[in-house]
Amino acid sequence: MERSNTSTVYIPVKEMYTEFVRILKKHGFSDPKAGKCADIFTINSLEGVYSHGVNRFARFIESIEDGHVKPDAEPSLNHSSGSIEQWNGNLGPGPLNAVFATDRAISIAKEKSIGLVAIANTNHWMRGGTYGWHAAKKGYAFIGWTNTYANMPAWGAKDPRLGNNPFVLAVPFNDEAIVLDFAMTQYSYGKMESYLNDEKQLPYPGGFNSRSELTTEPGDILETWRTLPIGYWKGAGLSLLLDILAATLSGGFSTHEITQNKAEYALSQIFIVIDLEQLGNYPVINHTINKIVTDIKASVQVDDNHTIRYPGENIIKTRKENLNSGIPVKKKIWEKIVTL
Amino acid sequence: MERSNTSTVYIPVKEMYTEFVRILKKHGFSDPKAGKCADIFTINSLEGVYSHGVNRFARFIESIEDGHVKPDAEPSLNHSSGSIEQWNGNLGPGPLNAVFATDRAISIAKEKSIGLVAIANTNHWMRGGTYGWHAAKKGYAFIGWTNTYANMPAWGAKDPRLGNNPFVLAVPFNDEAIVLDFAMTQYSYGKMESYLNDEKQLPYPGGFNSRSELTTEPGDILETWRTLPIGYWKGAGLSLLLDILAATLSGGFSTHEITQNKAEYALSQIFIVIDLEQLGNYPVINHTINKIVTDIKASVQVDDNHTIRYPGENIIKTRKENLNSGIPVKKKIWEKIVTL
Repeated sequence: MERSNTSTVYIPVKEMYTEFVRILKKHGFSDPKAGKCADIFTINSLEGVYSHGVNRFARFIESIEDGHVKPDAEPSLNHSSGSIEQWNGNLGPGPLNAVFATDRAISIAKEKSIGLVAIANTNHWMRGGTYGWHAAKKGYAFIGWTNTYANMPAWGAKDPRLGNNPFVLAVPFNDEAIVLDFAMTQYSYGKMESYLNDEKQLPYPGGFNSRSELTTEPGDILETWRTLPIGYWKGAGLSLLLDILAATLSGGFSTHEITQNKAEYALSQIFIVIDLEQLGNYPVINHTINKIVTDIKASVQVDDNHTIRYPGENIIKTRKENLNSGIPVKKKIWEKIVTL
Repeated sequence: MERSNTSTVYIPVKEMYTEFVRILKKHGFSDPKAGKCADIFTINSLEGVYSHGVNRFARFIESIEDGHVKPDAEPSLNHSSGSIEQWNGNLGPGPLNAVFATDRAISIAKEKSIGLVAIANTNHWMRGGTYGWHAAKKGYAFIGWTNTYANMPAWGAKDPRLGNNPFVLAVPFNDEAIVLDFAMTQYSYGKMESYLNDEKQLPYPGGFNSRSELTTEPGDILETWRTLPIGYWKGAGLSLLLDILAATLSGGFSTHEITQNKAEYALSQIFIVIDLEQLGNYPVINHTINKIVTDIKASVQVDDNHTIRYPGENIIKTRKENLNSGIPVKKKIWEKIVTL
């Protein structure tokens, strides 16, 4: 690999946003939609989730060119009952549909204390944490998940038939949020590829090799596609139930059907929002969370290299750093983006 | 260990139930409550979850004698708003409070399509799957969890400050259900003790030894209490968020506060029920689940010893076997129960 390919440029937030807006408008996005979508890709990058921000932007544009993502599609209501709404995403941009669904769930929760929005025929939401942060920063608790293309075998199986189905839980905390955003595979394909590129072993076993042995060798796992579910049989079970719930509550496709489509589009997603203000103990909720976090932080550390952190804590630090110094992007990636 | 201690007796369902009723009535349970509670302990045993059925019954009676579980306490409503109800369990028997909370969530869901019941000051619910089965057999989807005493370190920590916080997801399936019921630790303490007694290694690493190395040696983990969260940092994060949500939504104690109480009582639990009948796609839901299960079952097996199963599938087989041949109980355990 050439030196110049691996070198990093630091892009100011405003420059990245403006560039994304320009490209999205060129690819059929209206002005307001280009702004909203560029905002999500920029913030994901600003907050350090490059894999679902700037590093994925070119692929997002490809999915528009492929016709899998329709820039001008709007979600339409399929069915509504009580605190549940079922929407059709009409193959619109995943991040826009997901923000829309989160906002709908917030509106229902405001009225009925809890709101569940299930959306069928939507697309990759990029970073699940986006919607957890979106709801939690407004003071709501959030539970959400998506199904995906099959990329993980069932427990005891060799061929991938389960999705890694990212799952998000979020609560407001002080002026920020605690946001857990995790996939059902121990490591993402992107993470394993980056270990492979760096010629490094995974810190913990991440899947099985062709001899059905657990391995820390990323290349062996990328060859078998036998990624490891978190907690072995437990993560495989959780992936299955999240898919069943996503497909049944939305009336949309399951991982099995998405995989038959041969490309990852027309996904099913769930957005549950709880209005904490309506709870009897609302005035002490932030205090309760503070006590829990304070206790965890008082843990005896394994060593000085292992600071005890709550999920999402790093985001706040990274956001500040990148706001000051610009968002780090591999030169090669940024050079491609400006040509789009 | 003497031969007689390890030998097994087979107790007919009716005999076990009758014995449990007798003992519960002797310990302050009214006739109907003794029946309901005996029913749960018997069914947990009938369905093969002995650790939270017959094998735990004597300890449950102890918790009544200790005063941590109040046999005659009834849950009382703290607060209600929209589709959410917050209850006080008043330290009543965990299984009775949990069935009550599930039934309340069902009632709310019938009216508003989704119901969330949060209960504070309740007790160990024994087997979480009980409530998933209860709702799913009636046709509802179920999501629920409990917090616990601290029994797992945060990621990067040595001392236990997180609970293993069992999490349950269930959907109806044909005339039965698919029920996932799992704790955040890779193996329960009970499971590790049973491997230790049998002088066996765990099938996969289950925690850290005193040198901070991952180990399959159950005795080493029981010594350090450094159990492994499923998916390492991911399960630790999920445990934290489930505790935060349980404590904030119920207004009850967090794992931190329960641990300060020095005994595992006054827990916080969440019960979410969704009325599938109110969804636009209700008529095809069972068909959707069938297609997903059929696809998983068509997986290429690693070997002939690894049948691909959905969560809860074994329960149906075990239930049938134990109904025919009696419930297997270690002779020593049954001999103790009949003296209670």
